[in-house]
Amino acid sequence: MSGFGVFSVAGGTPRVGWRDRDEVVDLSGLGDVYTQPSLNALMALGRSAWDESLAAVRTHDGPRAKITAATMHLPFTVGDFVDFSSSLEHANNMGRMFRPDGDSLLPNWRWLPVGYHGRAGSVVVSGTDVRRPRGELKGPDAGVPEYAPTRRLDFELELGFVVGVPTEPGETVPPERFADHVFGVVLVNDWSARDIQAWEYVPLGPFLGKSFQTSVAAWVTPLALLDDVRVDAPVQEPRPLPHLAGGRDWGLDVDLEVELNGAVVSRGNARSLYWTMPQQLAHATSNGARLRTGDLMASGTISGVEHGSEGSLIELAENGASPLRLPDGSERSFLEDGDEVVLRGRAGALQLGEVRGRISP
Amino acid sequence: MSGFGVFSVAGGTPRVGWRDRDEVVDLSGLGDVYTQPSLNALMALGRSAWDESLAAVRTHDGPRAKITAATMHLPFTVGDFVDFSSSLEHANNMGRMFRPDGDSLLPNWRWLPVGYHGRAGSVVVSGTDVRRPRGELKGPDAGVPEYAPTRRLDFELELGFVVGVPTEPGETVPPERFADHVFGVVLVNDWSARDIQAWEYVPLGPFLGKSFQTSVAAWVTPLALLDDVRVDAPVQEPRPLPHLAGGRDWGLDVDLEVELNGAVVSRGNARSLYWTMPQQLAHATSNGARLRTGDLMASGTISGVEHGSEGSLIELAENGASPLRLPDGSERSFLEDGDEVVLRGRAGALQLGEVRGRISP
Repeated sequence: MSGFGVFSVAGGTPRVGWRDRDEVVDLSGLGDVYTQPSLNALMALGRSAWDESLAAVRTHDGPRAKITAATMHLPFTVGDFVDFSSSLEHANNMGRMFRPDGDSLLPNWRWLPVGYHGRAGSVVVSGTDVRRPRGELKGPDAGVPEYAPTRRLDFELELGFVVGVPTEPGETVPPERFADHVFGVVLVNDWSARDIQAWEYVPLGPFLGKSFQTSVAAWVTPLALLDDVRVDAPVQEPRPLPHLAGGRDWGLDVDLEVELNGAVVSRGNARSLYWTMPQQLAHATSNGARLRTGDLMASGTISGVEHGSEGSLIELAENGASPLRLPDGSERSFLEDGDEVVLRGRAGALQLGEVRGRISP
Repeated sequence: MSGFGVFSVAGGTPRVGWRDRDEVVDLSGLGDVYTQPSLNALMALGRSAWDESLAAVRTHDGPRAKITAATMHLPFTVGDFVDFSSSLEHANNMGRMFRPDGDSLLPNWRWLPVGYHGRAGSVVVSGTDVRRPRGELKGPDAGVPEYAPTRRLDFELELGFVVGVPTEPGETVPPERFADHVFGVVLVNDWSARDIQAWEYVPLGPFLGKSFQTSVAAWVTPLALLDDVRVDAPVQEPRPLPHLAGGRDWGLDVDLEVELNGAVVSRGNARSLYWTMPQQLAHATSNGARLRTGDLMASGTISGVEHGSEGSLIELAENGASPLRLPDGSERSFLEDGDEVVLRGRAGALQLGEVRGRISP
C-alpha cells in the first residue's frame, strides 16, 4: 500500500512519511512541508505541487523504518468535519429503522446529498481505542430517559476526502473543480451510539450519538492514485439541479470490507454510492461557505444492495432481529467491550489505509 | 464597556487588547500571550491566570487607541462550534412553524439541551458583511426545488461561551466545573436562510441554511464579570437527570436587543433561557467528547414570552403573517439587501460587545 502520513520513531519528532508496503519512508529531507507534524502544509500547496510531490516521493531515497516500529499520528489537522448521507441503501435502511411509520427516504434525499457537521475535535487516527460513551437514552417503553453507557454501539464504514486548497467566503466549488481542491481520501469509521442518537436527533440531527469519536486512516491516498479506479456512478433519477449535476465520473470501484474480531462481516464496494465526492463538495460550498485546508468530508455509511454488504452493524443485524454469528460462536447485534473493528479498502494494486479501533469500557 | 479582543492599528500586527469605553488598551506589554493574533493562548491558561489577567489589565498603562482607529479581528480561533436550542419560547415558536402538523415541542426537549455542530470555519467577527447565500430550496407548492438566492434570510440573537481549558477524551464537565473551563461569553448572530433550512434539515439537522456565516462580537466578556448579573434560571419541569441538574444559578439578567436599520425591533432578556450555559457544557461533554481551547457553544435563539422579545425575524413577523414596520415605512418579513442588524446586551454597567452585520447581495 501507499499514501502520505505523519509518523515518529523511537521518541523522534513527528514528520511526514510515505507508506511503501511494510515500510515508511521519511520525507523530511524533501523540504519544509515534510518536517511538519501534519500534512496540512503539503495539502495547502495545490495540485501541481501535489503531482510533483507524488513523483518525488516515489524516487526519494530517505531513511526507512519498518511500519511496526513507527508510531502513527493523526495525519492532518481537521478544519470542519462534514458527514453526508450518500448511500441510497443506507438511507433507506436507516429510514425504515428510525422512522418506521413514515417514508424511509425523505423528499429531499434524491435532490441533494443530505449532510451535517460532525465534531472535528473528536477525529482520531486509526488504532485509537474507542471508549464506550455514556449518554442520555430512552427505550421505546421507558417513561423517562436515563444516563447510561450506550447499549447500541456501532461502526460506520465511510469514505472521506480531505480538502487541501481553501476557498474564499462566497466561492463555490463546482463538481468539475473538485480535484483542484481535494488532496486525497481516507477511510473513516464514524462510530455511533444508536440509542443516544435515536433520543437526541430530532429535530437538529445527530450530536452526542456521534461526537465521542471518529476514526480515520493513518494514510491519506492522494487523489491522483484513484484515476485507475474511477467509474461512472449509478444513474440519478431525477437528475440533480445543474449545480450538482456533474462529477458523475467519480464513482470509485474500490472493494470495501469490515472485519470484526478477525472475521469479515461485510463486503461492499464504494461504486454503489449515489452521491459522488465532487457532488458532496459542490453541495457543501453551494451557499458560499468557505473551505479550509484540512476540512474532512465523509460519504456516510456505505451499504450495498445485497445483504452482507451493509456498512454498519445495525443494518447487518437488522436492528437486532438477526444478530451476526461470529466464528467463536458468539452473536453480535451491537459492539461489545473488547471488540475490534477494522475497515479496509482495495482495488487491485491500490490499497487504502485501514481504520482500526477496539472498544474499551 | 469592557472585554478582551484582538485588534490592530494602522498596519500593525494583531494583538490582544482590552476594551475600556471608547478606547482599546494595548496589552502586548503584559507578556507573550498578549502578543498573539488570538485569545487562545490566554484562554488556555486557566482560571487563576484569568483572574490575574483581569486584575492586571485594569491597571495596565499600555498604549491606547481610539476604538474608531482600531481594526478588530476574530478574537479567538474557533475549535468546534456547537449551537443549542435553549430557549423554550423559541423552540415552541419554531416547532409551530416548521412542523405545523405535530407537537411544537418534541419529547426530548425538556430532558436535554438539544444541540448540533455548526461550521467553525464560517465564524467571523462583528462588522463582517453577510453575503446573501444561494442554496437549494423548494416552496411548499413547487414540484421541484431550485437553486437560488435565499428569499428568507434571518438573524438569530444568541449568547455564546468560549472554552479556555480543554479536556481529555473521556472527561466530562459537570455543571459545577463550568467556570473552570470557560473563559468568557460573546453575543452571537447565527444568520439563517429559512428556505434552505426547511428543505434540507430532515433528518440530519441544519447544514447549509446556517453554515454560510455566523458572526460573533469582537469583545469577549470574561466570565468573572458576569457575577453581578447571575440569577436563578427558570424552574425546570421535569427536573433534569442528575448529570444535568446543576448550574441553575447561571441565569443571566442581561437585557438584549436587536436593532434593524437603526430601529430596535426586539427587546428581551437572557434570563428567560430554559437551559443554562453550565447545563449546555455538561451535556456536550456527557459522552466524553473532548473540549479544545476555542470551542464555541451558543444558546440558540433567545426569545421571550412577550411579543416583541423574539430573537429572530421569522418569529417577530410570525412567518410573514405580520411583517415588521420600520420607521422609514417599509416592511420586513425577512432581511433585504442593505439591511443592517446589530445585537446588543447590557446589564447596568456591564455591556457585552455588539454584533453588527450588513446584508450584501
